[in-house]
This record gives sequence, C-alpha cells and structure tokens, in this order.
Amino acid sequence: MVPPLERTRGDLTDRNCPSRVVLDHVSSRWGVLVLRALLGGTRRFGELRREVDGVSEKMLAQTLQALERDGLVERRAYPVIPPHTDYRLTDLGLEAAGRIAELLGWIEESLPEVLHRQREHDARRAAAI
Amino acid sequence: MVPPLERTRGDLTDRNCPSRVVLDHVSSRWGVLVLRALLGGTRRFGELRREVDGVSEKMLAQTLQALERDGLVERRAYPVIPPHTDYRLTDLGLEAAGRIAELLGWIEESLPEVLHRQREHDARRAAAI
Repeated sequence: MVPPLERTRGDLTDRNCPSRVVLDHVSSRWGVLVLRALLGGTRRFGELRREVDGVSEKMLAQTLQALERDGLVERRAYPVIPPHTDYRLTDLGLEAAGRIAELLGWIEESLPEVLHRQREHDARRAAAI
Repeated sequence: MVPPLERTRGDLTDRNCPSRVVLDHVSSRWGVLVLRALLGGTRRFGELRREVDGVSEKMLAQTLQALERDGLVERRAYPVIPPHTDYRLTDLGLEAAGRIAELLGWIEESLPEVLHRQREHDARRAAAI
C-alpha cells in the first residue's frame, strides 16, 4: 500500500497549511503562558490556573486539550480517590516551550523600552494633531 | 522632580502587567507573520499583504499600527507622487522577530510530527468511545 503523501514541513505563509492551526495553539496568549509554566515541571489543573493569572477554567481546559492533541502536553489521570490528573510537557512540547520562553523572557525584559517607545509615539501623535 | 516609578521588567504571569498587551501584539497570528516577513527586509503594505497570505487590509493595518506604537516597526512615508510608504523592523523589532522566527521555524519543521500525534490522539479517542 502506498502511504499518503506527507508534508515534509509546514509553510506558515500559506493560509491553507495546517501549521496555521498549530501556530494558533502555540502562540495564543494562554497557550504560551501554559507552555512556559509547564517548563517548571508537572502541574495539576488548579496549579496552572493559579500560575497563569486571569485564565478561566474553560479557556485553560480548551488550551490544554488543543496542546494535548498536538502532542505537546501529556495529560495523566491517576485512578485514585479523589481523582488526580496532571499535565506535563512531552519531548516535542519541551522544544516548543523553550522557544516560547525565549520570546516571553524578551518581552518581559524589553517592557520598559516598549513602554518608553509607546509614550514617545503617543506624544508625537498628540503634537501632530 | 521625582520621576515616576518605572518597572524594571515585565511579568507576564500578572494579568495586570502591561506586558500582556505587548504579548498580544507580538504573538498574534498576524503579528508573528508580519514580524517574520519584515526580517526579510523593508516591505510596502501591498507586499506584506501578499506575503502574509490571508490577512485582510484592516487586520494588517491594525497589526502594523500596534507594532509601530510598541517601537518594533518603523513606518516611513515618502512625500512623493504617488505616495510611497514602507515598513521595516527597528532594532528592538529585530530582537523580537529573531525569536519569533525561531518559534515559527520550529512549528514548520515539526508539523509532520504534530500531524502524526493528532492522528494518534484522534484514533485513541475514537477507540475509547
């Protein structure tokens, strides 16, 4: 049997490439913050909710489901009472999370500079009116 | 006069930190694709529209305005007829775009693996029903 034609790599410049969907999962506000939090190690749902300040229960569940389906996050349910479920990065997820942590660290470091540029920009626009 | 207290760095885990807004600009679907396209050099609006397949005129304009205000993109208007405007990365934008290109390149490279994991995941769920 001939295997179906497989993409050898994605192309994010193509609107029909499925990599666009992965981009949405990986670069969404909650996706990036969840992946970075999991770089710190295995987390339970409630721990992630506290660590990712502002995420709703529903959005966190959706985010985790998408990342699990993409093979970036592994969900483990332990058959104990009370039930215990936790989440951790897969090897693939670790690769994504490392790159995301680089970007997020840069945003945090650069925030004073960005705020400064925003103030300058707003002052120029106000002066031009 | 005492200068106002300045943040020395952002904290993306805090929902009230202004870095969350920068994250939205920098990690939005169109934000990441525009920043990566500008790594290739100065671009006119129409060039970006073609290069970032699927973006509407309105979304591209909004994306560029946000990135310009954050100091990541410089817009230059030349007083010629017909008018000529172009966009390029600032030094700060270059730093962001480099990190984004790392993440996007990883997504494109990893797409076959992610698609494989998705199929496995869906097959497991179908078998469990």
